Amino acid sequence: MEWDSLWFNGHAATMAPEGVVRDAVIAVKDGRIAWIGAAKDRPAGRAAAEHDLGGRWVTPGLIDCHTHLVFGGNRAREFEMRLEGATYEEIARAGGGIASTVAATRAADEDSLIASAAVRLQRLLAEGVTVVEVKSGYGLDLATERRMLRAARALGERFPVTVRTTGLAAHALPPEFAGRADDYIALVCDAILPTLAAEGLLDAVDAFCERIAFSPEQTARVFDTARRLGLPVKLHADQLSDGGGAALAARYNALSADHAEHTGEEGARAMAAAGTVAVLLPGAFYMLRETKLPPIDLFRRHGVPMAVSTDCNPGTSPAVSLLLMLNMACTLFRLTPQEALAGVTRNAAQALGMAATHGTLEPGKAADLAVWDVGDPAELCYWLGANPCAAVVRGGRLVKSLHG
Amino acid sequence: MEWDSLWFNGHAATMAPEGVVRDAVIAVKDGRIAWIGAAKDRPAGRAAAEHDLGGRWVTPGLIDCHTHLVFGGNRAREFEMRLEGATYEEIARAGGGIASTVAATRAADEDSLIASAAVRLQRLLAEGVTVVEVKSGYGLDLATERRMLRAARALGERFPVTVRTTGLAAHALPPEFAGRADDYIALVCDAILPTLAAEGLLDAVDAFCERIAFSPEQTARVFDTARRLGLPVKLHADQLSDGGGAALAARYNALSADHAEHTGEEGARAMAAAGTVAVLLPGAFYMLRETKLPPIDLFRRHGVPMAVSTDCNPGTSPAVSLLLMLNMACTLFRLTPQEALAGVTRNAAQALGMAATHGTLEPGKAADLAVWDVGDPAELCYWLGANPCAAVVRGGRLVKSLHG
Ligand SMILES: [Zn+2]
Ligand SMILES: [Zn+2]
Repeated sequence: MEWDSLWFNGHAATMAPEGVVRDAVIAVKDGRIAWIGAAKDRPAGRAAAEHDLGGRWVTPGLIDCHTHLVFGGNRAREFEMRLEGATYEEIARAGGGIASTVAATRAADEDSLIASAAVRLQRLLAEGVTVVEVKSGYGLDLATERRMLRAARALGERFPVTVRTTGLAAHALPPEFAGRADDYIALVCDAILPTLAAEGLLDAVDAFCERIAFSPEQTARVFDTARRLGLPVKLHADQLSDGGGAALAARYNALSADHAEHTGEEGARAMAAAGTVAVLLPGAFYMLRETKLPPIDLFRRHGVPMAVSTDCNPGTSPAVSLLLMLNMACTLFRLTPQEALAGVTRNAAQALGMAATHGTLEPGKAADLAVWDVGDPAELCYWLGANPCAAVVRGGRLVKSLHG
Repeated sequence: MEWDSLWFNGHAATMAPEGVVRDAVIAVKDGRIAWIGAAKDRPAGRAAAEHDLGGRWVTPGLIDCHTHLVFGGNRAREFEMRLEGATYEEIARAGGGIASTVAATRAADEDSLIASAAVRLQRLLAEGVTVVEVKSGYGLDLATERRMLRAARALGERFPVTVRTTGLAAHALPPEFAGRADDYIALVCDAILPTLAAEGLLDAVDAFCERIAFSPEQTARVFDTARRLGLPVKLHADQLSDGGGAALAARYNALSADHAEHTGEEGARAMAAAGTVAVLLPGAFYMLRETKLPPIDLFRRHGVPMAVSTDCNPGTSPAVSLLLMLNMACTLFRLTPQEALAGVTRNAAQALGMAATHGTLEPGKAADLAVWDVGDPAELCYWLGANPCAAVVRGGRLVKSLHG
């Protein structure tokens, strides 16, 4: 047998320069794509298992490259209070806001963090997601940040998904450091990040650079630490104002600058030069009823790759559907379906530093495939709340079957 | 045995004046609720089957009271063309718009209409929907309108859901009647509606009253026909402008006026007096990127009941998630979660003329229950793309089980 498995009688949206391959054949060996092309060009060879796609479409497995999937509690009551007319002060007095998630996460043990995140993760997986990034950032102390990241790693072992972890200790100022942001950043740089890195819990480092969070100088200290630890960086940048976050991220060759609604031309130019991906998060834009669109045309003009992600988090984007984010990226941000699909495959892989192995259907890349019951890939962006995912292959292994 | 089944150890959001019953017991007999109340008040009696809700929440089965669920084809390519910058003329020349759905629906046989709608219906049912309204309106000729309605009735026989059909022959002007709207309305009133009613295919009659569709006078002719046939009416009203649609609907004691974004104070007052429900359709509002919110405060002030629905249709709301509509009703229209939940239960029942038998958990009403894995009913509105539906009971029969 030349191959472990082979998929035929479907159409492939490769997301690679080849574009669409109609009547495609995909041959898999040792968990990777060994050959992909049109059926008429198929080389001689046999596979241990051959799967008829029945005319369906195949894309790379989807990649959700920005999530806060692991957290304690939820903020439904706060959502309700706001709609019932409560002021921010009243919500804060009732213990709302990120502080409530920090408290709930600190109070949760590892098993309960895993259990609550697993429900959310399974929604993502049912939609063809094969890679998910998970950030810490609701612990804001070493023990809880570690517990969140251990929960994320555990999810990657228990479910058929590749988990990439990101240390976001610089997410917000913990209550016990009120008025002492520099002291907290020193703790993050001197103790939290080095310890988590030494324990193998970090694939990247992230920070929240914003007037309501950390300054560019504090962010730079975090990034210097990441550099010393040999870890790539990402940044929550320019969500509420153009604070030069994207440019700062680019200066550190960041994998991505995320949100980026207020990024200006200078930032876009710097991102393009550094290969920094703009990760668009339409769920938060929608939930916050923002009106300032990310500068899509700037990103297009300068050739900044755009990714799309759920930003799954309990405060501003309690979203567990990446397909819904595709629709929102098109409807709210006016991405084309092709751009949106690149945003959850090729560009999402780049935003995680995985472009060499994931995100397109090409020989040598991981055999992570999503099979779709659609007549055209644009349908993945068009429906609201549908899930046409018919099958999922991860690392060559069928993890969601065509026949239930 | 006093009861056929009994549910205990959960909390009930009854959507009736009683409000929430904590630690509730629901006893079912002959497909209806025989008793509901707090466990401590439970009357003596035994049930053939007792189900432990495990601390979950129970609501009435959800009701999607405005859908165009049955149609041929889809409009994903048109969605894509628009995002790629095509003008409306270019889309029309490429066969887009409602005309393309009419053509695809006329070309589809009954089995294929059933099969494509079944996929969408199953998404709704998985989220706890037990009643769904389905409109005709993509046939615009007797044979195709009939085929759509027969498909809708067949769905109600094949799936555990109560289907209510609505004749919407006055949805748009068919191409063969271009420039002859009055002639088409005469055909609708003299032939299409009377025939469909005689065949038992109609539970109600609807029309699209708008500058781009039918005038108030033409709509009144359709409503006069419905009255003659003994059928209640509904109306697509005031979506794009305040054309007095809501007031017209109220004059005919319509069950509902739907969309109603531009309804003014006079319309709201008339609806309240007539008991006409305002059916809010946030999916279409979102997809069309409308900015004119429906007059929620007017409806509140005048006591107009508000329902919420998917408007599932291939052009302006390809939505198959009623839970997503709950989130959109809250996020975009600023309904409170309580109002949104009433909109898919009690008020949705009223919008279908089923208030006496459905929409609340009260003795004598249908035992249509949805069981939810949530800590609070507000979570049903809070998550984006989640589905915490743990079990569904319809007419006393368990149709989605707690244990998979
Ligand atoms: Zn984030
Ligand atoms: Zn409609």
